[in-house]
Amino acid sequence: MEIVFKPIGIVHNDHPPGQKPPTWQGIPSRIELDPCWTEALSGLAGFSHVIVLCYLHRAQAQEPPIWIRAQGRPEMPQIGFFGTRTPVRPNAISVTAVPVVKLQDNILHVHNLDMFDGTPVLDIKPYLIRGDCHPQATEPEWIHRLRTIQDAERSENT
Amino acid sequence: MEIVFKPIGIVHNDHPPGQKPPTWQGIPSRIELDPCWTEALSGLAGFSHVIVLCYLHRAQAQEPPIWIRAQGRPEMPQIGFFGTRTPVRPNAISVTAVPVVKLQDNILHVHNLDMFDGTPVLDIKPYLIRGDCHPQATEPEWIHRLRTIQDAERSENT
Repeated sequence: MEIVFKPIGIVHNDHPPGQKPPTWQGIPSRIELDPCWTEALSGLAGFSHVIVLCYLHRAQAQEPPIWIRAQGRPEMPQIGFFGTRTPVRPNAISVTAVPVVKLQDNILHVHNLDMFDGTPVLDIKPYLIRGDCHPQATEPEWIHRLRTIQDAERSENT
Repeated sequence: MEIVFKPIGIVHNDHPPGQKPPTWQGIPSRIELDPCWTEALSGLAGFSHVIVLCYLHRAQAQEPPIWIRAQGRPEMPQIGFFGTRTPVRPNAISVTAVPVVKLQDNILHVHNLDMFDGTPVLDIKPYLIRGDCHPQATEPEWIHRLRTIQDAERSENT
């Protein structure tokens, strides 16, 4: 069974594509949708956050290695890739919940979207507290360790 | 540009497909992945919640109407479909965050997955508090009104 999708738009930002920034926090992006969807966006700006689905076109060509360490860090445990958010996965679709800055015609301005300039967009959905927000969720120990390491590295870089 | 994906698995549950239940809360589903992905799932059960991406095959054939009312309810405002989670959208991909019950080989047991038996699965990701959980998110007034109506209807049905 083959499933065929077409992009509804493209991510634009001023960050050099292919170079991962220390953090995407605060980086502004413009999601430019095909103008045929301008009316379909009305109502979306009533939500403070949206979920953006992108097609990770740079990753899709790669065969996913089954076992990986988070961010390729040797101090992280080796786990199956489905236990991570690696872009190299059978169907290279990303899910990112980001704050909306403003909607202007067919362009949705957001912050924190962890996508390179030129990434194709598959869908945009409203972020719903009931359903999308699970503050009671728990994570394995290594995730907490990873965040501590990342936070320390970021504060060294600033 | 055409993007081609293949399902990684199928949702199974005992709820009659095509009939929306009053609520999916508490309904158990089994996500049966292709056995080639069994090892790639290891590590996922360390998370209490996962994000499941499905291909809404029943909806994809339909042309999305631009303007809709949430759940077709006349008391809801007319908005563009991107402001809702309607399955009828240009790329019919669903995003649902659900609690993990257990992982058994290539079968992930979950609760609350709002998918009919037989729905193709595109991806499974760990639910990460930092990134996926936004308790400060705000929603338009009609969402709160919709929930009040739904909750009242459910309590009438029980």
